Amino acid sequence: MLAANPVLVDVVPAWKAIDGLSEHTILHAGPPIEWARMCGPMRGAVAGVAVYEGWASDLDEAAHLAARNEFTFQPNHHFAAVGPMTGLTTRSQPLLVVENRASGNKAYCTINEGLGKVMRFGGNDQSVRERLAWIRDVLGPALGTALQQCGGIALKPLVARGLAMGDEMHQRNVACSSLLLREIAPALAGCVDHQDSLTAMLSFMGGNDQFFLNIAMAMGKSIMDPVGGIEAATVVTAMTRNGTDFGIRVSALGDEWFTAPVEMPAGLYFPGFTERDANPDMGDSTIVETIGLGGFAMAAAPAVAGFVGAGSVREAATFTRRMGEITLGQNPEWVIPSLDYQGVPTAIDIRLVVETGIVPTINTGIAHRDPGVGQVGAGVVQAPLACFESALRSLAGRLGVS
Amino acid sequence: MLAANPVLVDVVPAWKAIDGLSEHTILHAGPPIEWARMCGPMRGAVAGVAVYEGWASDLDEAAHLAARNEFTFQPNHHFAAVGPMTGLTTRSQPLLVVENRASGNKAYCTINEGLGKVMRFGGNDQSVRERLAWIRDVLGPALGTALQQCGGIALKPLVARGLAMGDEMHQRNVACSSLLLREIAPALAGCVDHQDSLTAMLSFMGGNDQFFLNIAMAMGKSIMDPVGGIEAATVVTAMTRNGTDFGIRVSALGDEWFTAPVEMPAGLYFPGFTERDANPDMGDSTIVETIGLGGFAMAAAPAVAGFVGAGSVREAATFTRRMGEITLGQNPEWVIPSLDYQGVPTAIDIRLVVETGIVPTINTGIAHRDPGVGQVGAGVVQAPLACFESALRSLAGRLGVS
Repeated sequence: MLAANPVLVDVVPAWKAIDGLSEHTILHAGPPIEWARMCGPMRGAVAGVAVYEGWASDLDEAAHLAARNEFTFQPNHHFAAVGPMTGLTTRSQPLLVVENRASGNKAYCTINEGLGKVMRFGGNDQSVRERLAWIRDVLGPALGTALQQCGGIALKPLVARGLAMGDEMHQRNVACSSLLLREIAPALAGCVDHQDSLTAMLSFMGGNDQFFLNIAMAMGKSIMDPVGGIEAATVVTAMTRNGTDFGIRVSALGDEWFTAPVEMPAGLYFPGFTERDANPDMGDSTIVETIGLGGFAMAAAPAVAGFVGAGSVREAATFTRRMGEITLGQNPEWVIPSLDYQGVPTAIDIRLVVETGIVPTINTGIAHRDPGVGQVGAGVVQAPLACFESALRSLAGRLGVS
Repeated sequence: MLAANPVLVDVVPAWKAIDGLSEHTILHAGPPIEWARMCGPMRGAVAGVAVYEGWASDLDEAAHLAARNEFTFQPNHHFAAVGPMTGLTTRSQPLLVVENRASGNKAYCTINEGLGKVMRFGGNDQSVRERLAWIRDVLGPALGTALQQCGGIALKPLVARGLAMGDEMHQRNVACSSLLLREIAPALAGCVDHQDSLTAMLSFMGGNDQFFLNIAMAMGKSIMDPVGGIEAATVVTAMTRNGTDFGIRVSALGDEWFTAPVEMPAGLYFPGFTERDANPDMGDSTIVETIGLGGFAMAAAPAVAGFVGAGSVREAATFTRRMGEITLGQNPEWVIPSLDYQGVPTAIDIRLVVETGIVPTINTGIAHRDPGVGQVGAGVVQAPLACFESALRSLAGRLGVS
């Protein structure tokens, strides 16, 4: 994990990046799930993406097709990919490509759509689909060319800088989003010769404080995939949720999922919404906690503690210290100034989680439980202990420990 | 001070912005000084700027002309302007314009030249002069147009954000430089139709973590100028240094300068340099400490404490707390997360300085003492107590206090 060298190298259409991403296949966040058990916002996003891909003429038809099993659903995680919230990935969407140059593997994530009504929070109307089409036709190809021309952007130093600037890379990405834009803007200006297009791209990226989230997620996946399949290793290699189940993978246990019902976030709501509107927790974005960021790096981002309703600056540090009790080490390259340059707690050990009863803290956005509405708040959610217990039991069985 | 509303509105040539900025007039940092008493780097910059303006054919001729009193020297501060380090302002240079919309006044500062060999640190060779010409002919006009088109950029909220991201706006401006670029990039793309030019501008601004410093300085000047001339007010309205003298102005004492010999910074040096190479402290940039930033906001920027050799995170907070003892209040809009959202200490009171013996702490760059070399380090410097004592004595005299 610590030797990883993730570099944002390209943006390519999903069908090019992911073998076997055929027509009518929809990758989603979290562990495996079928239509019947999908939560409202994921169903909303499925309907939207089917219309966007041209597989249905409207949202109703799309939902009928989904209910008749006309679509194949698979987790992003099965294809070296991740997606925030509903996390849908389909063949025409452009994907950010992060290459882990230490181990040679690549990981993928869609481009962040911005705030407001967006597909990742279950939004699916025409404005959502038009934005996705613009990302596909204009922004994605330009970003890909710009990244190729500038030789890629090394993410480890960028994240190190972001941590010193108040980002924790899950609910706060303003520093890394700004630093990234600053780094890529000259190359973008060099490869986009249509002035209005360039202005629109710079406005879109510059107006979105969470633009970097999806890059951090692909980075996380690129770091964790090579950690899978190590004999007897008790490190968590993925944590993710689909709005119904929470699932983890553990190194020694390879591709097996250990799941439990996902919890409700505790947090703050946008005006006009309450916890009665909230969907249970959702998204592959917990990959950032898996690498020591997000809730694990809360001490770096006191502003997030306030935003998610987790209290004062001192309380923010408590989250990070507590995560230190269930991790095997600290990342010496990702340090937190306010903790006198301690590294972020890194490598969750299922033994420590079960022994202490302390579960990973996750910073998260909150989606409306109904399809088509979008984000209603942000908060903190606990990973369910049951996943860690069943994984540990399974490992004990394999190793012949009674 | 707290009601100020500084907005970056334009970039204009100095001759347009400043009445009476004629040929052969050179504005400089600090209180008034003549050629004979100028330090090495300021002399180097004077020679360079005279060649840049076409008033001399080479550096030697320029120095001879200066020695023969062919140039008129005046402080920036006498013309609503400020300049970093040597701080030279001449008629063809483009100036950033900050309008304080609460009081209607404007203040000016040149555009930051970047790091390395630059005029503000006494650099004067052809590369320095060519960069100044490019800023004059390409970058300045484009930035002016972009700012006009986007209606200006409000600086108070930008600085508030920067403080939450580890900037103190004197030795660290990476957050505000990035946020500003992000905000202005779309407008810049809209008004520059030459692709290579745009790429060069975005690279130049994006590659300079200190780009925002000069904007912060013009902002400081725009905030403090309206505070001058209030009867019996003991607030410091300007602190500045020319590499030889340190000078302050006090509200009740109007435009009068109170000076003392400037001190040497204590700090860290770039490889190959030591304190024997250092010039005494220099520049109008102390205007940022005058408004509660820089050394006063050190707690917001623990990375700076390390960079200037002032110690650990906890020690960084000590600087800010100590400045609280010589200031009249805190700025409720510019808060420091790590101090549980306390505002930066604001409004230096000469009575408190003299009573406590605590002098303002200033974060500063260090120039080589010889002309033409440039920056050799960064550190912390103390304002000399004698300025504050003589100002207080003068005020006491005026008010008839024995």
